[in-house]
Amino acid sequence: MKVYYECAPCFLRQAKEALDLATDDLDLKIKIMEEIITFLGREFKEGAASNSMGTAMHRIIKKKTGNDDPYFLQKKKGNEIAERMLPVIIGILEKENTLENYIKAAIIGNLIDFAALGVDFDPLNIMESVMESPLVINDREELESALKSSKKVLYLADNTGEIMFDKLLIQKLKEYGVEIVVAVKEKPILNDACMVDAIEVGLDDSAEIITTGTDSVGVIYDELSAEFKEIFDHAELIIAKGLGNYEGLTEIDLGQTPVFCLLNTKCSATARDIGVKEKSNILLKIN
Amino acid sequence: MKVYYECAPCFLRQAKEALDLATDDLDLKIKIMEEIITFLGREFKEGAASNSMGTAMHRIIKKKTGNDDPYFLQKKKGNEIAERMLPVIIGILEKENTLENYIKAAIIGNLIDFAALGVDFDPLNIMESVMESPLVINDREELESALKSSKKVLYLADNTGEIMFDKLLIQKLKEYGVEIVVAVKEKPILNDACMVDAIEVGLDDSAEIITTGTDSVGVIYDELSAEFKEIFDHAELIIAKGLGNYEGLTEIDLGQTPVFCLLNTKCSATARDIGVKEKSNILLKIN
Repeated sequence: MKVYYECAPCFLRQAKEALDLATDDLDLKIKIMEEIITFLGREFKEGAASNSMGTAMHRIIKKKTGNDDPYFLQKKKGNEIAERMLPVIIGILEKENTLENYIKAAIIGNLIDFAALGVDFDPLNIMESVMESPLVINDREELESALKSSKKVLYLADNTGEIMFDKLLIQKLKEYGVEIVVAVKEKPILNDACMVDAIEVGLDDSAEIITTGTDSVGVIYDELSAEFKEIFDHAELIIAKGLGNYEGLTEIDLGQTPVFCLLNTKCSATARDIGVKEKSNILLKIN
Repeated sequence: MKVYYECAPCFLRQAKEALDLATDDLDLKIKIMEEIITFLGREFKEGAASNSMGTAMHRIIKKKTGNDDPYFLQKKKGNEIAERMLPVIIGILEKENTLENYIKAAIIGNLIDFAALGVDFDPLNIMESVMESPLVINDREELESALKSSKKVLYLADNTGEIMFDKLLIQKLKEYGVEIVVAVKEKPILNDACMVDAIEVGLDDSAEIITTGTDSVGVIYDELSAEFKEIFDHAELIIAKGLGNYEGLTEIDLGQTPVFCLLNTKCSATARDIGVKEKSNILLKIN
């Protein structure tokens, strides 16, 4: 995805958020903020890829604060919230165990970071509203057909906490006779799940876990490890969670691979890019 | 006031707000956003004056969109909200007509722009909570003493809507035997009051109205008109409303003139600069 005008204030909002999580040193914060603005002043142009810019910004913050995991506590919080939500969602899924409901559950997982970051979030309300509303874009039939003709699915994970909900969907996907490989991040970026987080929630019981080899927001092809590139290039089917992956995948030549994005359009930029309203829950075939 | 690290995201948040009010042209918005980021990339440095930077940014938006008053409708809304609040506040002041209560009323006026911009705002609750809480900084005694030894007060106004509340305080100040000169902006900037707004609410019945000669956020000495500089330089006593005036006045050599700021510390940067919590209501002698 290319940057929209409103990505600029959002980058700096996120820079402030990450800086506040990473350090209490006010002198350091303004020095880093200066560096980020200088970087954006140089790079923020029509046609720039939004996730590459976000990645570079978060790397500046991690490097200059010396804090390589500013969202550590938020990730723990995300796990706690997900754990509290899980029995309710499992109860719902047991009543009506359709693929669509598992997809909706996985999208609910994508909303947990709002709560972990202190945004107004009522888990019960959210679960009810997502489960009861139709997906705004629902390419489920295409997904089912792709599942039926694939042996292996590459599942690009997003956040910590969320991956507990992904685990439910992954178990459901396996009913289609596919193996699942879940890709997490090699090193911390935002509240994204890394290997340690995936193992902590037992995701390795249901799937093979690998990493993208890097700490990018979503995927940036040139930054992927050689091992992951090999898997990515030969994937039969990709299912990708969250905005970062949508932003990144829409910048990559995906060849013939069917690619499905599961996400909530949390911001006006992604909503406009996809052509839906903000806060829409979607299962979208992008390739 | 010098910029703090969090001024950077706030500048771009405000740029987005002003762009959204000024134009619907997405292509134009990203071009202007690029220009603003380039400008900030060059100018956002430790030691830069916050209101000069905000002023330059809003001028870019007005010039490039061709909309010289993006906040026109928000100003009308501010007036409507102020008009609805006015009878209640007058009722309170009639019961206990102390200077302190009039000062609090003028600070309530400074909060109306939150409502006009769609931020969660309950006028009745706000009025009750401000009137019932002590001012966090209260230099009222120094103000009364300065009023008693002055013949003329220069009153630097802030927002449209708010000036209806200023009118009440101005009428109270006149009980101290002073004449009041109210300075509004020469041309629109944010939702600040201009001459036409002051006349619309009959502020000219209670005070002489002049303009600063420019459209800056608060006051920037070098930009003031020669006529206003003359008045400013020879002021016996200055009372200034809102953050923009605080930001600007703290960058000016004020000589021997007693200067009082009436404001709500709406953001973390001004709160830190003054040494109080965010959202504090204060009457502060800054000189």
